[in-house]
Amino acid sequence: MLTIKRLSLADARELIAGARSRAEEIGVPMCIAVTDESGQLIAFERMDGGKLTSTIIAQDKAYTAAGAKRTTESYGVVSQPGQPAFGINSAIGGRLMVVAGGIPVVVDDEVVGAIGISSGTPAQDHECAQAGVDRYLASR
Amino acid sequence: MLTIKRLSLADARELIAGARSRAEEIGVPMCIAVTDESGQLIAFERMDGGKLTSTIIAQDKAYTAAGAKRTTESYGVVSQPGQPAFGINSAIGGRLMVVAGGIPVVVDDEVVGAIGISSGTPAQDHECAQAGVDRYLASR
Amino acid sequence: MLTIKRLSLADARELIAGARSRAEEIGVPMCIAVTDESGQLIAFERMDGGKLTSTIIAQDKAYTAAGAKRTTESYGVVSQPGQPAFGINSAIGGRLMVVAGGIPVVVDDEVVGAIGISSGTPAQDHECAQAGVDRYLASR
Amino acid sequence: MLTIKRLSLADARELIAGARSRAEEIGVPMCIAVTDESGQLIAFERMDGGKLTSTIIAQDKAYTAAGAKRTTESYGVVSQPGQPAFGINSAIGGRLMVVAGGIPVVVDDEVVGAIGISSGTPAQDHECAQAGVDRYLASR
Repeated sequence: MLTIKRLSLADARELIAGARSRAEEIGVPMCIAVTDESGQLIAFERMDGGKLTSTIIAQDKAYTAAGAKRTTESYGVVSQPGQPAFGINSAIGGRLMVVAGGIPVVVDDEVVGAIGISSGTPAQDHECAQAGVDRYLASR
Repeated sequence: MLTIKRLSLADARELIAGARSRAEEIGVPMCIAVTDESGQLIAFERMDGGKLTSTIIAQDKAYTAAGAKRTTESYGVVSQPGQPAFGINSAIGGRLMVVAGGIPVVVDDEVVGAIGISSGTPAQDHECAQAGVDRYLASR
Repeated sequence: MLTIKRLSLADARELIAGARSRAEEIGVPMCIAVTDESGQLIAFERMDGGKLTSTIIAQDKAYTAAGAKRTTESYGVVSQPGQPAFGINSAIGGRLMVVAGGIPVVVDDEVVGAIGISSGTPAQDHECAQAGVDRYLASR
Repeated sequence: MLTIKRLSLADARELIAGARSRAEEIGVPMCIAVTDESGQLIAFERMDGGKLTSTIIAQDKAYTAAGAKRTTESYGVVSQPGQPAFGINSAIGGRLMVVAGGIPVVVDDEVVGAIGISSGTPAQDHECAQAGVDRYLASR
């Protein structure tokens, strides 16, 4: 039997609050998803004005970061033409995201969930996701 | 040109709060989804212990209620064997839900969004969804 | 933070061994899937002669039993015409199985994974799944 | 009438054992899938700690290698920008994998099945898949 740590709903809200706060500062309404370590949704918020396509993309960024235990940004690097993971972006029905904005949440060296953000530039998405992670880790 | 009324994120939170409050009273951890009038997700919460299959089903109940402008419960009646909508449950890749728990949110005779709930019995899901709608309408 | 118990690969093998042993006794080559508590595959075996459609169905039975925390057989009862969950069989892209053969594995009142079996009659599938669960629980 | 050679479950276990043994040597917990020559799953194991996204990707690598009768690594070469198979990675709903880790099993010049591995780097995945093939062929 394995013992797994998993984000609670209260944890997920803290992650979203941190991300939303940064999104408000930079003035970009975001879609923000938090999944558990198995990639399944715990909480989601689309800020007023967030993009509709991003409701799916944010969830899939979080799914990817949780399931693959890495940032989606890092997948963007290794999936460039000529790189070893080229073409992986269409895996799992296209759910595997290689665009920045998905970050695993790591506690005591274990992935316990992930946050995925979409609606801004990938750099903005990643920045807000990191702000969510920072706020959550500081609150523990 | 059309003018559409649509739930805001603040509205969606009110709907979720009302549903969650009833779910806590009856002691059933629920997955609660709120979509806009186009059936796309605004906000979602999985209460700790909510069923994982329900993360999808709750969203699809809200999608169905918003898009078809009717409760999923009412679809359950008209899709029985021999009834006119028999077989519609597998439409749209199976997203069209005919199990109770999805309710459109109606303001000034217009559907402005919907709430979908899953994890309990269909009757419990519907009860909590209605509690969310009631709380939201009372708060306006 | 939540703490979750999850079947290990060694546990999954024990479940499969118990199911396979019963399948051999009754002379029906089965597809046998074991998922973790999040419904994701840990181990799978198709006995020689198992049905090809059953490679998917066995996995989806285990997914359903884990995610919904109930047997797929029990879903078959409540999803009959006129019953409250009628029509739920096409949910989640048709992955939600209401045919017997999926059983959650419960340890200390927690669902830690599930077994799903397909290729025989639903009664045979259920019997072999139960044999897998019995063997696993006896081995702990 | 055609006569087809196909891996048995016993063969599939040998392939998995060889791959797992190498995975343990290099210290990377892998998802390991073996399909028959028609690309359909015979056996699967997720080693404890294997990535959840890899449960799907490993199966799709084996499916691709069996169905297309070539390594997924070789598809990675011919699907680069400007190459003849560019864009094929999203075929079949994204199941066609062009990332290393899928290898067909060839006996007497016939493809009799395939192995697909995921969770490490593509080079590690391929190395473990090859170790599985080597062990199986040596055991015959």
